[in-house]
Amino acid sequence: MSYKAISDIGEFGLIDRLSKLVEPTLSEVPSLLKGIGDDCAVWRLSETSLQVATTDLLAEQVHFDLLTTPLGHLGSKCISVNVSDICAMNALPDYALVSLAIPNPFPVEMIEELYRGMSHAASGYGLAIAGGDTSASRSGLVITISMTGRTTPERLCMRSGAQPGDLVCVTGTLGGSAAGLKVLMREKNIMIDHISSNEPYSRDLMADLQEYGEAIRHHLLPAARLDTVRFFHENGITPSAMIDVSDGIGSDLRHLCSSSGTGATIYESRIPINPKAREIAEELQEDVITWALAGGEDYELLFTLPQELAGSIDGNRDISVIGEITEKETGILLTDMYGMTVSLGDLGGFDHFRR
Amino acid sequence: MSYKAISDIGEFGLIDRLSKLVEPTLSEVPSLLKGIGDDCAVWRLSETSLQVATTDLLAEQVHFDLLTTPLGHLGSKCISVNVSDICAMNALPDYALVSLAIPNPFPVEMIEELYRGMSHAASGYGLAIAGGDTSASRSGLVITISMTGRTTPERLCMRSGAQPGDLVCVTGTLGGSAAGLKVLMREKNIMIDHISSNEPYSRDLMADLQEYGEAIRHHLLPAARLDTVRFFHENGITPSAMIDVSDGIGSDLRHLCSSSGTGATIYESRIPINPKAREIAEELQEDVITWALAGGEDYELLFTLPQELAGSIDGNRDISVIGEITEKETGILLTDMYGMTVSLGDLGGFDHFRR
Repeated sequence: MSYKAISDIGEFGLIDRLSKLVEPTLSEVPSLLKGIGDDCAVWRLSETSLQVATTDLLAEQVHFDLLTTPLGHLGSKCISVNVSDICAMNALPDYALVSLAIPNPFPVEMIEELYRGMSHAASGYGLAIAGGDTSASRSGLVITISMTGRTTPERLCMRSGAQPGDLVCVTGTLGGSAAGLKVLMREKNIMIDHISSNEPYSRDLMADLQEYGEAIRHHLLPAARLDTVRFFHENGITPSAMIDVSDGIGSDLRHLCSSSGTGATIYESRIPINPKAREIAEELQEDVITWALAGGEDYELLFTLPQELAGSIDGNRDISVIGEITEKETGILLTDMYGMTVSLGDLGGFDHFRR
Repeated sequence: MSYKAISDIGEFGLIDRLSKLVEPTLSEVPSLLKGIGDDCAVWRLSETSLQVATTDLLAEQVHFDLLTTPLGHLGSKCISVNVSDICAMNALPDYALVSLAIPNPFPVEMIEELYRGMSHAASGYGLAIAGGDTSASRSGLVITISMTGRTTPERLCMRSGAQPGDLVCVTGTLGGSAAGLKVLMREKNIMIDHISSNEPYSRDLMADLQEYGEAIRHHLLPAARLDTVRFFHENGITPSAMIDVSDGIGSDLRHLCSSSGTGATIYESRIPINPKAREIAEELQEDVITWALAGGEDYELLFTLPQELAGSIDGNRDISVIGEITEKETGILLTDMYGMTVSLGDLGGFDHFRR
């Protein structure tokens, strides 16, 4: 018998295979509307009420580095990335459960700091942390959050509802999180160089990082766009499809189009680049468009809207229309500043098992 | 600033501290009936319907050893331990989400085997695996399952409802899981001795373990007592308090009594010792009562029942009455075979951070 490495099929190939294995469990549950394959699972609670549920696991050295991540920030981020998945369904968060695997020399006060960050973020989102599980870990810190939320059949947005002609929209700005991560990584390397050369680490990290504060905040303390979901609800707007920007809009737009069976064209000139990310990219001589398309972790909302609803978002300065949905055959394209068109099909997003 | 090690306050001391930190998040959610401190969190979905939710994290080298645990069995066990928490609320399981942190050299086929075990167990419980998250791990395999279930206000059992005079009951037999684990650990040590002495490992493990099969199955493939919950529902029985036996009945009875504000007396002669565990304990010259009281992982249900309902369980041969609830001041006592009474207060249960 020969074995296949996960890196051969990638994260999304693995998810496809695992989906098939759990299919038999779904047959007895008629209230399930969506299982694996969207930001949340969705099931019916009653005629007028749907429940959505999501889970995210964050592992030390894979998702975060304790050298550059204050624990309070990490706690807040763990909550926000799950709320972001709830938001992507056009739903509001209700309850969270928190599972921790804790390396044994970890002091109580550090776990409390992590929880203070989670609790503060949860309060801001109107979310209750209702339970959890704590365990020892023989290796790094692992944090798993699972979360439920609520919406209605009329408001529910899935990845699969986009139609050719719909506008492609995104909230906020992109690339900020990638820029913040680059600055933190540079600082970490300087720190390690100092330590390995036995020189004292004399830089005042905080003072030095002040000018990069906004980008670092985007990376360490992303906020879920619950404000956008509330704006949709207050104005009776239901996007035709939605996904949160966790892997980078290149990859996330591919997921949305693949679920909807469409193509899309977006315009480089309309992508809302984070201004601080642009400055940092110039300083580091890196390509800010790549950060915006493939950097990931911006936790903005990418959604599509029928053309006739274009007027409904006019008043919201925080939403940019960056392109339109096309027929599947057209593919997923980026038109650059010079009017040249390139395929976004090959541009990587984040894949845990391919890096 | 001085730091406190988690081992100084133990798992339950840590949970107490973390509960206080999440309290502020609960104030805006009037539908929450129970947060941290029971087998599940509980909230109201409607007048007549409650939702319960639980999460369990299993980490390699802490909860399982891949040398002695087939992955299909492990998948099944992960589902069962969560269903067991749902059962402890007198509820039925609905949906599960599965988060995996996978070490990179792990082949796809092994993850599929794990999922096959989960899927098979879920189908048996009428549970749908509705979603999840997969990620790389820089260290061992970590599996987190979260699960929701449903019950009614009339049926809900919490740890806190026991009253002096109630009967203390337990399902099935105890000590089987601890016995199975001892046999597997012995086998593993023999294997390691052979390998380190460069001798070929010639024992036919499976043939050799046949006679211990039942105990090993108790450890590797525990079944949640959904059958008992269905028996309660069909016969209109609602225990006054319930908990699942995950840490050993010594420790789990303490949790139940502490939540209910009572004491309890149980009788050694009435504890349903697993017959195979008794044989193995004799062979290994260990104390089978300690396995039953503190071995853990039997995943039976420990519950209390008002005296007047004693007749309602008469027909169920799988339920043993092992003692009664007393006033708090009496403490938690075990009366042994010779009529001597010892306190169960000091007998350890499983604590991740104290071992």
